[in-house]
Amino acid sequence: MGDIAGSRQAIARFSASSPVFVCVISHTATSEIPGLTVAGANPGMVKFTSPADAEFLHYGRCRCIPVVPATPDGKPTPALITRAALQAASIPLLVVDSGAKVKPAVPAISFGTSPGGNIAKEDAMPVEEVERALAYGRTLGAQLARASDLVVVGESIPGGTTTALAVLGALGVDGRFKVSSSMPDNPHELKNRVVASAYARAGKPDNPIEAVARYGDPMMPAVAGIAAGAIDEGGRVMLAGGTQMAAVLAIMKKIGTPLGRACIGTTCYVAGDRSADLAGLVRAVARVPVLACDLHLGESAKPGLQAFAGGFVKEGVGAGGASIAAMLKARIDGEKMRKAIEREYEASIERRPAT
Amino acid sequence: MGDIAGSRQAIARFSASSPVFVCVISHTATSEIPGLTVAGANPGMVKFTSPADAEFLHYGRCRCIPVVPATPDGKPTPALITRAALQAASIPLLVVDSGAKVKPAVPAISFGTSPGGNIAKEDAMPVEEVERALAYGRTLGAQLARASDLVVVGESIPGGTTTALAVLGALGVDGRFKVSSSMPDNPHELKNRVVASAYARAGKPDNPIEAVARYGDPMMPAVAGIAAGAIDEGGRVMLAGGTQMAAVLAIMKKIGTPLGRACIGTTCYVAGDRSADLAGLVRAVARVPVLACDLHLGESAKPGLQAFAGGFVKEGVGAGGASIAAMLKARIDGEKMRKAIEREYEASIERRPAT
Repeated sequence: MGDIAGSRQAIARFSASSPVFVCVISHTATSEIPGLTVAGANPGMVKFTSPADAEFLHYGRCRCIPVVPATPDGKPTPALITRAALQAASIPLLVVDSGAKVKPAVPAISFGTSPGGNIAKEDAMPVEEVERALAYGRTLGAQLARASDLVVVGESIPGGTTTALAVLGALGVDGRFKVSSSMPDNPHELKNRVVASAYARAGKPDNPIEAVARYGDPMMPAVAGIAAGAIDEGGRVMLAGGTQMAAVLAIMKKIGTPLGRACIGTTCYVAGDRSADLAGLVRAVARVPVLACDLHLGESAKPGLQAFAGGFVKEGVGAGGASIAAMLKARIDGEKMRKAIEREYEASIERRPAT
Repeated sequence: MGDIAGSRQAIARFSASSPVFVCVISHTATSEIPGLTVAGANPGMVKFTSPADAEFLHYGRCRCIPVVPATPDGKPTPALITRAALQAASIPLLVVDSGAKVKPAVPAISFGTSPGGNIAKEDAMPVEEVERALAYGRTLGAQLARASDLVVVGESIPGGTTTALAVLGALGVDGRFKVSSSMPDNPHELKNRVVASAYARAGKPDNPIEAVARYGDPMMPAVAGIAAGAIDEGGRVMLAGGTQMAAVLAIMKKIGTPLGRACIGTTCYVAGDRSADLAGLVRAVARVPVLACDLHLGESAKPGLQAFAGGFVKEGVGAGGASIAAMLKARIDGEKMRKAIEREYEASIERRPAT
């Protein structure tokens, strides 16, 4: 398949005719640490990013904020790519709310989880909420595996690479200087300091539930649960995202889920990110294929899309995995995906007044 | 197809290889009017019935109450039949919470709706909530039509035939003495009195949104929206239930949804209920096929199952529609369904201590 990097066997193994896409939205106080994320036009807006992404996926516009989520200098959310992919291949979408701080104006599956704490100074979430999100995820994932031959799970959670780094470390995988970033200038030192403060506060539990409760976020047990439930029901799973999904894989491995029917699907912008090492991180966790799509966004005439290829944003809201699923289902290449993304950009960014 | 009553064309038209089942759970204060429903062991328990049904569908046992929902004399919830059907044919399940008073311990899609009022003395719900439930339903239904070739929608809402009667009347269909009941001794007079009080309070608006807001319940716009969204996306829909679904059809017709890809799926116990007239009610609304399955429960050795054939409970939680979808997908007849239901009865009722 053109424009999807990965072994031929892996691509064949995760080709699907009836994929379903699930977007898990979450929030943590960790994301409010200044300098950690640009997922939001300013720090006060970060809590709107994930619900606005969910609204954008469904409606092509947002309701909880008057504009499309963007970085402070106006680079748009990767939900733009995800929506274009889902529309191009008529892939069904479900939104899961696991700890969103602002509720999206969409029908969302509630996992009964609160937003996560700031791990530098407090636990991320109560153990019972980790367990509930995992259990609800399993319940949902099993049903989705009945409905679909590939469950693609993405996330929208600002600041998620820092909590990923913390959980990976607690579970024995050193992710320092390997996790990705929505900025070209990856703030590794800040992330490492936040995680060091967290460990200083509460040690390094090897138990995955404890690790998530202390250092993770509400996205992780939700995604791990959905994936585990789908796999246990005989289904196949694509974790759609970057280095955060390495942390989810580590959790799944620790809770005893066999990973033979799981893969990671992402963009070439994260897979090739020289400020990070997704392949190395995943390899340190398990032998799971990493598929990466080339969306040819560097060749786009739209500056907001070129930015994805220039080291900004790169991935998120399952953009890479959704694109791979769409390319495999609808048999289209990266060029065609770029055109679909450009049409979405024109409809949602260029035709709306900037504010 | 053996054991499904309906025209051969209609059965062929609604045969599906990848049906999905959605259960909408709701509550109203109308259901707390003494004598109106037996969906609950006692009046204080009625608010637990629909969340407990949702839990039973997923887990085969309930969490918000220690027992399986039952009538005061111990006749079990029809969720037993629904669960057996979904399991027999591996049909995926999603739960929608549209106004449940007690939240179920399952991953449920929230429609942001409050429980309904007692229509004898107050409006059922605000107009905005009717509109939101309808809009969220459309959004969800469109996605489900992408995932599935038949969207089967059932409900669990105690007292729902009374609000159905009220909404049908407001929309020009006289349902008096035609709506069904969970009791063999159908309390028509009481239902008519409640509805007459409602009309005396607030007139008979012909507008479907207003009619639901004044006299309906939060289940109706949710189910109507899901069905309309699926149909608009090109999908087919089975409204799984009895006379309440005639009210949903009337709403769909008034909001301009074409009904050519919709049918009603129910049990022969409701379709043949001599204290009601489902076929007549549906005919008064639109030319939509009514499929009814014979589950041979009168031949069961289990008294709790025989009761369904003896005029008790009859239908609910989409039992009839789920059974028809299962029979058509897995190519099994009513006898095989009865055996599956008996196994479910043994596992969930006989093997658990009664309390």
